[in-house]
Amino acid sequence: MPDQQYVKKKFAQASIESMYRVFTVPEAPDSTLSRIDQHVSNNLAGFMQDHIVAVEHDLQAMEKDFADSKIPEKPTFVSEHAQFLLDKLVARSVHTSSPSFVGHMTSALPYFMLPLSKIMIALNQNLVKTETSKAFTPLERQVLGMLHRLVYGQDSDFYTTWMHDAEYALGAMCSGGTIANITALWAARNLAFPPEGNFKGVSHEGLFRALKYYGYDGAAIVVSKRGHYSFRKTADVLGIGRDYLVAVDTDDDNRIDLDALRETCTRLKKDNICIIGIVGIAGTTETGNIDPLEEVAEIAREFKAHFHVDAAWGGPTLFSHRYKHLLKGIEKADSVTLDAHKQLYVPMGSGLVVFKDPKKLKAIAHHAQYVVRRGSKDLGSTTLEGSRPGMAMLIYSGLKIIAKEGYEILIDQGINKARTFADLIDTDPEFEIISYPELNIITYRYCPEFAQLALVSADDIQMDKINEVLDRMTKFIQKTQREKGLSFVSRTRLEPKKYHQKPCVVFRVVLANPLTTLDTLKDILTEQKEIVSQSVEVQHFLKRLKVLCD
Amino acid sequence: MPDQQYVKKKFAQASIESMYRVFTVPEAPDSTLSRIDQHVSNNLAGFMQDHIVAVEHDLQAMEKDFADSKIPEKPTFVSEHAQFLLDKLVARSVHTSSPSFVGHMTSALPYFMLPLSKIMIALNQNLVKTETSKAFTPLERQVLGMLHRLVYGQDSDFYTTWMHDAEYALGAMCSGGTIANITALWAARNLAFPPEGNFKGVSHEGLFRALKYYGYDGAAIVVSKRGHYSFRKTADVLGIGRDYLVAVDTDDDNRIDLDALRETCTRLKKDNICIIGIVGIAGTTETGNIDPLEEVAEIAREFKAHFHVDAAWGGPTLFSHRYKHLLKGIEKADSVTLDAHKQLYVPMGSGLVVFKDPKKLKAIAHHAQYVVRRGSKDLGSTTLEGSRPGMAMLIYSGLKIIAKEGYEILIDQGINKARTFADLIDTDPEFEIISYPELNIITYRYCPEFAQLALVSADDIQMDKINEVLDRMTKFIQKTQREKGLSFVSRTRLEPKKYHQKPCVVFRVVLANPLTTLDTLKDILTEQKEIVSQSVEVQHFLKRLKVLCD
Repeated sequence: MPDQQYVKKKFAQASIESMYRVFTVPEAPDSTLSRIDQHVSNNLAGFMQDHIVAVEHDLQAMEKDFADSKIPEKPTFVSEHAQFLLDKLVARSVHTSSPSFVGHMTSALPYFMLPLSKIMIALNQNLVKTETSKAFTPLERQVLGMLHRLVYGQDSDFYTTWMHDAEYALGAMCSGGTIANITALWAARNLAFPPEGNFKGVSHEGLFRALKYYGYDGAAIVVSKRGHYSFRKTADVLGIGRDYLVAVDTDDDNRIDLDALRETCTRLKKDNICIIGIVGIAGTTETGNIDPLEEVAEIAREFKAHFHVDAAWGGPTLFSHRYKHLLKGIEKADSVTLDAHKQLYVPMGSGLVVFKDPKKLKAIAHHAQYVVRRGSKDLGSTTLEGSRPGMAMLIYSGLKIIAKEGYEILIDQGINKARTFADLIDTDPEFEIISYPELNIITYRYCPEFAQLALVSADDIQMDKINEVLDRMTKFIQKTQREKGLSFVSRTRLEPKKYHQKPCVVFRVVLANPLTTLDTLKDILTEQKEIVSQSVEVQHFLKRLKVLCD
Repeated sequence: MPDQQYVKKKFAQASIESMYRVFTVPEAPDSTLSRIDQHVSNNLAGFMQDHIVAVEHDLQAMEKDFADSKIPEKPTFVSEHAQFLLDKLVARSVHTSSPSFVGHMTSALPYFMLPLSKIMIALNQNLVKTETSKAFTPLERQVLGMLHRLVYGQDSDFYTTWMHDAEYALGAMCSGGTIANITALWAARNLAFPPEGNFKGVSHEGLFRALKYYGYDGAAIVVSKRGHYSFRKTADVLGIGRDYLVAVDTDDDNRIDLDALRETCTRLKKDNICIIGIVGIAGTTETGNIDPLEEVAEIAREFKAHFHVDAAWGGPTLFSHRYKHLLKGIEKADSVTLDAHKQLYVPMGSGLVVFKDPKKLKAIAHHAQYVVRRGSKDLGSTTLEGSRPGMAMLIYSGLKIIAKEGYEILIDQGINKARTFADLIDTDPEFEIISYPELNIITYRYCPEFAQLALVSADDIQMDKINEVLDRMTKFIQKTQREKGLSFVSRTRLEPKKYHQKPCVVFRVVLANPLTTLDTLKDILTEQKEIVSQSVEVQHFLKRLKVLCD
């Protein structure tokens, strides 16, 4: 009988070897995981169709499969695990690339992104420093340069000077638009309270001493009330306070009201509040409208505030000769947020911010001894994040393979489709458009003609009552349609001028997927009408509505 | 001749079709990209070996290939672009999975991560909300639960209660450790200045009014001087000011000096500075040492400060029966940062923070109308980031496939290897260990025996002179070795007690790659000695050193 020690040692040895295998030996070509991998590669659309079940799953029921808080002691076979993922996760994920998934800003991906992503993952570079990224660092600098040029259109000399300068960066890559917005306003805050005399700047001494030194009673960020919720987070995290994210009223078209903006700024100034930044929106999340950027830039200059543009959604409209005029004035922004995982069709996790003047990004520079040393070209010195993956490679690939011409087609067809869809809704007596598409986003609601007519002449009390029923109907239809799983529109609440800025629940449709056709959209409306005619609940609402409108 | 309009229309039509193809038609099996993809799948190690050229590339030379700031007008063929990436990017990236790449915390990936990543990318889920992630949301909640349990070891009832609760989350997934640390201290700051009476809390009213209301003259975060540079960023971004990130001295072993910590806290209290948080480090970035967490917890309680532990590196040591005692006291932390892309061997972009008391994470909750509504299970309401990819799937897969047993082996072999490597250096008269491994990180420098002896009896002036020459030698050797490209150790500066806390340049070795063998490490030392004997510069330094030491 072999002695115990020997057996133990042999076992440990075997385990180390099996760990070694995990790192070096690929899955056999006929293993479950390899087959799934192949299937995804050969026919993504087919894979999605076959594996993503369209029926809504009850969240609570799903939670049962994800209930164990214990990390298992013993390893699971890769193929067994792959099968589990297929059955329990993939089959119950959301088919974000489905042409009828038009509810959110997560769309289909171009095919080439898949094998390129695998290469990116395999290389596992870390962009915080050149030592762990080498060529990826100049690549990322180039991507920042290309998108900077798209926005600001400086001449080639400018980019030759700045793009690869060790002291500066033209922008910061981020995991998404929220971090990009925070980065922009972090820089704006630090620039608003710079070092002076004995004061070492807000970056060193903090906001309390900064406001005392400069003699302010507070600091604020100004944005329209359609601004993304990340700005509230920004105001919170930066120590400004979310009450100092001042939301300005919008006009009938969800664009910032310039008079209200000026009044707001004047009032803040009078109240001795420092305006750190004014934000213009180039494509509001809910309605896709664009603030009058040129005029907002003017007001920002007047009040000496950093002018930031959140173009997370609308930025790529600059590729379109036909529609880029909508973003006129964006080149006057001090900083601009873009989300590559939205209309640049890059996988999730890829936002960025570009700065007109690369010197301004220095306001948030940090250094350490073992990385991002002073004078190095390490991009980590001007990012909020530390370690970051090589997503720049995928943005770069999109810019090369789809190119300006391709992105222009994608933008144009989205906006054109939204307009056609608007016509469709307009001519349908059962629906009411709440916001017409300026870009490729449209909001509407279920509102039969008799209710539309009644609302025109209703007094405030009656209007509220009618809208309350309509809200419940719209909400019900949206949820039912989502649960049926054939298509998905999202919903939000808007405060339309014509309903005296009272909140109304609306359907929201985002048309960025080139595979969505007019027929897809027709089917969505048809299905919504079917839900109305077939649902006892909606029929009940309809009866109440008729009584109210009589 | 067909009329102009018709030709234009046909062209536009063709372009739309080609865009459609980009989204739907996979690469042909024999295309360049498909071949690369296959090659990566079949033999990652071979692919890396064949394609990542070991020789150092001049950064400026590389920049020439990434110099064009213009986005191309016309699309590039996918295969042409793939070939470009192979030649210009892949060939000049860093072989992070090479066994001799032991300089940073970016290591090899288990094979199964590649096909799983492709599936994750193809599904393109967005974890900000359930509507765009469905089963991924309960999965992410489970992953947070599993890692919470690893750290805090609550009983099953606790997790049954909290893991899937719509009002709370056990932690926040982040793109990396920096965002995780910011998230933890953001919550800590908001908890330090909560709503009270007429005051709506720092989250709403900002830091200026918070400090005024609570009557403080400042706010501080306390961490040892070995703390990660992300804490300086944190203090900056949160509006506390980086001067209020108070760095406490360490003992001989790079662990926080408890007396100094207590003195610092007492002084801050006396100066009327609110201590928002005290940070314990479980694996310092530079030396891998662990603060005495139990005692730090005690001091944090005494001063009523949030106790955060940065276990980005060392957290998975909890898998090891042999070494987990090193982290004793971590379960007393209010929040703990873990980086899954470090010692959980998940691809880059995967950090997280867990909170002992899930209610505390509410301090940073944000909501919106169209996502993360109140009462939804959307995980986006308690994350700093907005849209996020489904990285939880990859962490989950690691926890299942490698399991506790596998991670234990990985941790144990790393620490054991570091100790053996330390013995090797100790017995080699040409090298001097600066920090012995507590985990799997070791620092040392080139320092011939005669210099080691001279330093023992040197006065301060002589010591500085000797160390200055040694610094230049170590720096030169590190750079030369990196440029030769066979292996990579990083370098940093430490202030060893025995050299009166004067900065010394050191080699830093991180041993997390299971493929690194003792022979790899022997080769690294041999190569360093060869650089010394073959380099004119180092020989020149050596001569100066001999004169100084005589």
